[in-house]
Amino acid sequence: MTFRDALRAGEDFDLEALDKASSPGFDGDKEDAEALMPDLAEQASDLQERLYAESKAGGTRKVLLVIQGMDTSGKGGIMRHVVGAMDPQGSEITSFKSPTKEELSHHYLWRIRKALPEPGIIGVFDRSHYEDVLIVRVRNLVPPEQWGARYDEINAFEQELVDDDTTVIKVMLAISNEEQKERLAERLERDDKHWKFNPGDVDERALWGDYMEAYQAAITKCSTAHAPWYVVPADRKWYARLAVMNLVIEHLTELDPQWPEADFDVEEQKKRLAAT
Amino acid sequence: MTFRDALRAGEDFDLEALDKASSPGFDGDKEDAEALMPDLAEQASDLQERLYAESKAGGTRKVLLVIQGMDTSGKGGIMRHVVGAMDPQGSEITSFKSPTKEELSHHYLWRIRKALPEPGIIGVFDRSHYEDVLIVRVRNLVPPEQWGARYDEINAFEQELVDDDTTVIKVMLAISNEEQKERLAERLERDDKHWKFNPGDVDERALWGDYMEAYQAAITKCSTAHAPWYVVPADRKWYARLAVMNLVIEHLTELDPQWPEADFDVEEQKKRLAAT
Repeated sequence: MTFRDALRAGEDFDLEALDKASSPGFDGDKEDAEALMPDLAEQASDLQERLYAESKAGGTRKVLLVIQGMDTSGKGGIMRHVVGAMDPQGSEITSFKSPTKEELSHHYLWRIRKALPEPGIIGVFDRSHYEDVLIVRVRNLVPPEQWGARYDEINAFEQELVDDDTTVIKVMLAISNEEQKERLAERLERDDKHWKFNPGDVDERALWGDYMEAYQAAITKCSTAHAPWYVVPADRKWYARLAVMNLVIEHLTELDPQWPEADFDVEEQKKRLAAT
Repeated sequence: MTFRDALRAGEDFDLEALDKASSPGFDGDKEDAEALMPDLAEQASDLQERLYAESKAGGTRKVLLVIQGMDTSGKGGIMRHVVGAMDPQGSEITSFKSPTKEELSHHYLWRIRKALPEPGIIGVFDRSHYEDVLIVRVRNLVPPEQWGARYDEINAFEQELVDDDTTVIKVMLAISNEEQKERLAERLERDDKHWKFNPGDVDERALWGDYMEAYQAAITKCSTAHAPWYVVPADRKWYARLAVMNLVIEHLTELDPQWPEADFDVEEQKKRLAAT
């Protein structure tokens, strides 16, 4: 079974029922997963370079990897260990923080559109337009009729991306409430982790149920055929990394990018070069 | 001896006399160098994360790593193996290609300024403002009095960066004419490398001497106390990667970024968290 099949959120997906410590599509343990990573990184890098090469010969295909998840769910670790395993010239990470004044003065997709990947590139969103139906919904930052309209807008927006030769891979890193508590506690224990801690993170925990509802709604309403959601149990970091790496590889493998043919006469160029 | 001391271009630096296959500051061979890299990557990542953490607590320091070199000198390999060894969230690569129409309508430093790193970030330039005294000079793209004035402008610009808490590390990857010929030949031999070859690369070889003169001038005139040039012999890729990695580490070590102190009461937060 592919990770895509194991993790794709279908119509009856139930976030609450998902075991956040499970490892769908994988039989092994932590050691097994970590032993696989270097070879997978190699595969992903090779495929990514082909996609990039294709674009240099006029190809228009690109990938957008969207990473969502609660605080401490391991988004940074995915950036470091999955995205970081590929050539940095072929990917581009955008971290979406609380919108700036300027961003707020525009449509919520404005800053998203500005960050879309160019041909040949794997664009990676650390948080995304989904915040506009997650924290915005939970914290009532806009009226319900406004965020309520966004699910359809987002589906239409993502259809646009797909029509523009973008492969959209949407990943939710799903951790349990207890695991978040442990990870926050670790940030408080360690001096070198204090900078990652924000007292507001504790306040947000009071809204955990609302967040889960908002995630469930985003997944149910926006797991479309053209841009499905993949929900990755993330209590075990090694599994989440393995799963996202494989999701990227499976999508790139389907794209099957090829080295472009030379648009010059190779033998002629060899002669010219030899004469220098 | 540090790599900084071994590679800094002083007043009497002579590019032509430099042995491009040498390995200043390092006694070992390829195997030794490659064995060192994982540990160095770890060190660089740790230092980089501290720099990033410092910026989250209001620090303004940042690093700009400028990579220059002739075609095939290994700029891409530095991006992949040195920059790529660090957390991708802490660095930002900008590749400067032939300027676009819009870029040409502005001062040559316009596009450079737009790409400068934010606090906590290691900005990496794959080519840079130095192209405006390299290819521009060699190919007479602007009159001599115009490019001739740029050396002083660049020195003043880099002084600005330093005054703005930027550590500027300028690296020239110096390959020999023969090594370039071999590397271009390899691109012609391998189907998976054809896309990297451009017949124009052969034409440029006729101007090799002019390029070396332009590099010599850029190094002589712009190896300032505030932003010296480091010239890295690059015929051996393993040495160039080792050297640039060490240059980055030595500069970050000097910055000595520290984990920020918590700006909240740790014990209080532990209690609040425990209550959730």
